[in-house]
Amino acid sequence: METAIPSLSFSSDYMEGAHPAILNALTETNFVRSPGYGLDPYCDSAKEKIRLACGAPDAEIFFLVGGTQTNALVIKSLLRPYEGVIAPETGHISVHEAGAIEMGGHKVLPVSHKLGKITAADIARVLDAYAQDGNREHMVKPGMVYISQPTEYGTLYSLAELTAITDVCRSSNIPLYVDGARMAYGLAAPANDVTLPDLARLADIFYIGGTKCGALFGEALVMNKRAQIPGFFSIIKQNGALLAKGRLLGLQFDTLFTDGLYFEVGRSAIAHAQRLQKALQAAGFRLFFESPTNQIFVILENETLAALSEEVEMGFWETYDATHTVMRIATSWATREEDVDALIALLPRFAPRG
Amino acid sequence: METAIPSLSFSSDYMEGAHPAILNALTETNFVRSPGYGLDPYCDSAKEKIRLACGAPDAEIFFLVGGTQTNALVIKSLLRPYEGVIAPETGHISVHEAGAIEMGGHKVLPVSHKLGKITAADIARVLDAYAQDGNREHMVKPGMVYISQPTEYGTLYSLAELTAITDVCRSSNIPLYVDGARMAYGLAAPANDVTLPDLARLADIFYIGGTKCGALFGEALVMNKRAQIPGFFSIIKQNGALLAKGRLLGLQFDTLFTDGLYFEVGRSAIAHAQRLQKALQAAGFRLFFESPTNQIFVILENETLAALSEEVEMGFWETYDATHTVMRIATSWATREEDVDALIALLPRFAPRG
Amino acid sequence: METAIPSLSFSSDYMEGAHPAILNALTETNFVRSPGYGLDPYCDSAKEKIRLACGAPDAEIFFLVGGTQTNALVIKSLLRPYEGVIAPETGHISVHEAGAIEMGGHKVLPVSHKLGKITAADIARVLDAYAQDGNREHMVKPGMVYISQPTEYGTLYSLAELTAITDVCRSSNIPLYVDGARMAYGLAAPANDVTLPDLARLADIFYIGGTKCGALFGEALVMNKRAQIPGFFSIIKQNGALLAKGRLLGLQFDTLFTDGLYFEVGRSAIAHAQRLQKALQAAGFRLFFESPTNQIFVILENETLAALSEEVEMGFWETYDATHTVMRIATSWATREEDVDALIALLPRFAPRG
Amino acid sequence: METAIPSLSFSSDYMEGAHPAILNALTETNFVRSPGYGLDPYCDSAKEKIRLACGAPDAEIFFLVGGTQTNALVIKSLLRPYEGVIAPETGHISVHEAGAIEMGGHKVLPVSHKLGKITAADIARVLDAYAQDGNREHMVKPGMVYISQPTEYGTLYSLAELTAITDVCRSSNIPLYVDGARMAYGLAAPANDVTLPDLARLADIFYIGGTKCGALFGEALVMNKRAQIPGFFSIIKQNGALLAKGRLLGLQFDTLFTDGLYFEVGRSAIAHAQRLQKALQAAGFRLFFESPTNQIFVILENETLAALSEEVEMGFWETYDATHTVMRIATSWATREEDVDALIALLPRFAPRG
Repeated sequence: METAIPSLSFSSDYMEGAHPAILNALTETNFVRSPGYGLDPYCDSAKEKIRLACGAPDAEIFFLVGGTQTNALVIKSLLRPYEGVIAPETGHISVHEAGAIEMGGHKVLPVSHKLGKITAADIARVLDAYAQDGNREHMVKPGMVYISQPTEYGTLYSLAELTAITDVCRSSNIPLYVDGARMAYGLAAPANDVTLPDLARLADIFYIGGTKCGALFGEALVMNKRAQIPGFFSIIKQNGALLAKGRLLGLQFDTLFTDGLYFEVGRSAIAHAQRLQKALQAAGFRLFFESPTNQIFVILENETLAALSEEVEMGFWETYDATHTVMRIATSWATREEDVDALIALLPRFAPRG
Repeated sequence: METAIPSLSFSSDYMEGAHPAILNALTETNFVRSPGYGLDPYCDSAKEKIRLACGAPDAEIFFLVGGTQTNALVIKSLLRPYEGVIAPETGHISVHEAGAIEMGGHKVLPVSHKLGKITAADIARVLDAYAQDGNREHMVKPGMVYISQPTEYGTLYSLAELTAITDVCRSSNIPLYVDGARMAYGLAAPANDVTLPDLARLADIFYIGGTKCGALFGEALVMNKRAQIPGFFSIIKQNGALLAKGRLLGLQFDTLFTDGLYFEVGRSAIAHAQRLQKALQAAGFRLFFESPTNQIFVILENETLAALSEEVEMGFWETYDATHTVMRIATSWATREEDVDALIALLPRFAPRG
Repeated sequence: METAIPSLSFSSDYMEGAHPAILNALTETNFVRSPGYGLDPYCDSAKEKIRLACGAPDAEIFFLVGGTQTNALVIKSLLRPYEGVIAPETGHISVHEAGAIEMGGHKVLPVSHKLGKITAADIARVLDAYAQDGNREHMVKPGMVYISQPTEYGTLYSLAELTAITDVCRSSNIPLYVDGARMAYGLAAPANDVTLPDLARLADIFYIGGTKCGALFGEALVMNKRAQIPGFFSIIKQNGALLAKGRLLGLQFDTLFTDGLYFEVGRSAIAHAQRLQKALQAAGFRLFFESPTNQIFVILENETLAALSEEVEMGFWETYDATHTVMRIATSWATREEDVDALIALLPRFAPRG
Repeated sequence: METAIPSLSFSSDYMEGAHPAILNALTETNFVRSPGYGLDPYCDSAKEKIRLACGAPDAEIFFLVGGTQTNALVIKSLLRPYEGVIAPETGHISVHEAGAIEMGGHKVLPVSHKLGKITAADIARVLDAYAQDGNREHMVKPGMVYISQPTEYGTLYSLAELTAITDVCRSSNIPLYVDGARMAYGLAAPANDVTLPDLARLADIFYIGGTKCGALFGEALVMNKRAQIPGFFSIIKQNGALLAKGRLLGLQFDTLFTDGLYFEVGRSAIAHAQRLQKALQAAGFRLFFESPTNQIFVILENETLAALSEEVEMGFWETYDATHTVMRIATSWATREEDVDALIALLPRFAPRG
């Protein structure tokens, strides 16, 4: 079978399989018999390691297969029927889940974003507007908040920003849920000041992404006491989200949380990304904004884009203006030093003329 | 980490990882970049091989992660809102999916079974009763039929039985859906006369089970022209059932359908099961019924059960009477000759006294 | 416009409009302006009278338009997603609501009935089976109980039977819901020993039927403290069940609960029904069973049925055997003495020959 | 019982009962027996008259109880699971139905409005954006269009505007649905050039509002051939929206469509409203905009508002600025000449000083 994508590719962070340590673990334990549905010792061990990493000995941990699945189950389980979820208008649930939240019965209440982020004040405004509306019982009640860390733009909430959001949520007694699909890349960012224990403390429920961070697939959902969902195991089953061989999820997260692999996965991708971003700037390329994580956004002249695309695969992000396009360059755990070198070597040929 | 289950275990067919050929394929292609969401060449190749094996060049193939997920998506996509699905009262959807079908909005219309099977006449009776009821517009309309091959009891529909069911469905213009979670074990059974091309011809939609038949996870859904579901890709996404790294499913089914591995997986499990079943009979044990596939059902005195359970793990099936229990002994692709030898060697010690 | 149905008709209890007192009330208050959505003084007054009649000063009362709507909203509001509702297999929700409960996401767990009734022991059996099943987390959990008083067969639970059911429910901590579509006819039955205060005490939630008991439409839902549903007003709105002119429901129930009209409606129908039942017996007709309420069930030879149907309209109930049919004769608040006389006068001509 | 609202009230158009002709019809036919569930001759007659008024002899007509119910049923019946409905951001379904559309599984795709209206170009933009998005299969597909005539602001689509919207919908093969909750007031507006036959031709499905236009309750849904919904009767039943005494809806619409009553109801309200609007302007009040229908919007200084509110009830619409509020003054079929006189007489006292 042929390779599907040109070898110099930075289009996304889920184009390869898994970190080799995970394939090793799967291979080594392949013939060990274990109970199904996540009741196996690998899951137990992984949960214990995640609780430790989060400084949250009482947290409940569930493993799920993918991000949209996790978002949909959490949101429909936490909301009352007539409640909706506040989210940035660019949030994954707002745009790219084919209406999963609405299929679960709930409105996404979109809030204007800045590079994927919303503020405590934005959230307070939505909550106040509802509280003061005389017709509010005929309206969707804002019942929880969804944000992503890092966001879909690769930006990060600071500890201060996140704390402010938590304060607003708690004063209105609604849960805060954080989508951590690319969590490893956030944790490893030099600019980041939000740790896993901070998330476990400030979010009522969040997930640590595996699919985009070194696993074949899988997300680890961490719930604190305020977000307990009675019967969540049955809800997972009922939604077709229960893996018969739950061991697969346990093994992967046990591996990722052994000897700091999850953090290492992030660090290597971030090092590559930051080196690339600096090289782009040095070569005179214009950034859409300076990204702190593994997704770099560059504004290319459409002519340059056409030429460069023959050499390297990038991801389309958005149209900038009539003659420019924003492209995304993503690194991952699988990015190799030599690929970064190759891309940097290409830059002078395509750089804008000063 | 300790082994979770005693090494002599016949409790189920999804206690281990995957057939080694699958792990090899994953490892070998781990760093090949490929598009996400099943748009990769592994999926394409697997689909082509399955179409070939089914003699169905026009079939649409979709890969999904698990059986409950597949059942739920198919059923809610094919039914009109006020329709229900006819199923054996022992069908997986009737009993063991935590209400997934109802969560999708539809009633399961249960039909009395014989060892997991229902007949064309049973189905016709339900359809006729609806058609003749003066209040039928206030009732749930039977809108499709669900059966399993092999059934949850390991029994098989014969080609004649399946053809009769298809005839009833087509004359009422409702689709027939076959759950093939353990398909490999059906195809390899000496008593079986229903091939994949038969299924592709007689069922409007069916799935070829991977999770219990050698894969880490995954089911391959095969739809003929009568069962096309517009926008099924988006439906999969919306239901959180779209794997970002769809390649994982493609690779596994590509491997299973290369050089007849899927059939080999079945044959080996069946050979072990049939040898065990004969040994049980020879030793004087009473069978619940003579099983044609990889699940053997033996009636044990409760005292014998307690003693035997210390040596070998079996699955509880049902209470037979006050002093007897029906236990299930399942083999799989992972069952080893030496395990079967060990269990057979134990039998004389526990056999009923003539 | 022509009359739609022969004037001698006993086919059902919702063939006419409303008790004249209700039309009077609507006419008299037609131009009084009042707030929408049930926030009007008629609703307040009606609620107060119902609380008084139920001896339940703390009960919450909601008015809804119809029975299926009420059942569907109550059941989906009280159950967790993976829970189902225990109901007689002949219950209205089991058979004649076109799958409304399943559309709401929940399985109806049917229990064999005796003339529409189930017992505390039946319910306990379902609860125990679930509690003891090792796979219960993969199954639908019985989360509430639905019964009707009177039942769809017109039979009645005695106070002792109802108390036993309540005891089982409370010991399993699940709510008991009673569908009172024909409540007036139950309350007025000589054999009845269950009062509204008994229902308010023993059921966690029940409704007092208006549609079949003298109103144009409408049902009054009575909830005690154990069954509170947060945000039920918004749930009603969201389900399209909120009447803009809620006053219509308030006015009707205010009228029905003024000067005992609701009880009078029942008494007159029951008097007619019991007189008819006795006349049928006296004339030698065979009853399906001796009914205590306003629905009488007679077994007719098919030939007799054909002849009698030209003179009087009855309701088909079920096929009895190859040559006999069970027919339902229903009286209501609108039944006139002269109609009963006329039917009784017909009987000798059609009576079976001794 | 006391009057609930000051007699000088223009707060909304559903504060009273029904047009006296409707109460007469209910009273006169109260004891005529007729079949349940809308299978009665009153419904048949009303449907025939509506088909005639719409010049649509093949239209299917269904009667439903309320507007939110109608919107929710139509939208969930016409959309595929992953589709959403394009609507003005101020549409009733976007704001004031407590999430009914989302509960039905679908996203409302909001479009910026001008006084409640959107344009063909707006709709085309949404459709094009979807069609051109490379990730569209991961997104909600725009599957139908919802508008109101008159809008929630009382504004009207012209025939040209509506025709342009229809053209866009048909060229994308998606249905156009028109919410006509206040249709009578639109039809009677001097500025209106859209007739019922126009609507029947240009909308695939629309409803003629009864609740706000003279009926006690009820909406008449008109579907052309392109919008047929198989099994809609059962869908209505399943959603708890089937009235047992369907005759009530038939009788009301039969009355409204006899001798042009529906149009007369509109004309009288519009005459009052237009007279009021002119008087407000003449007295120097500032209008929010010049309204063509029965809802007048005036910008009041908050001080004036406080004083005027002691004399007349109006509806809060929105905050205009720190010191002004937009108030709605609504007339209806029940508005009396003398009330309009009384309000006009008050104006000089409260008018802004030039």
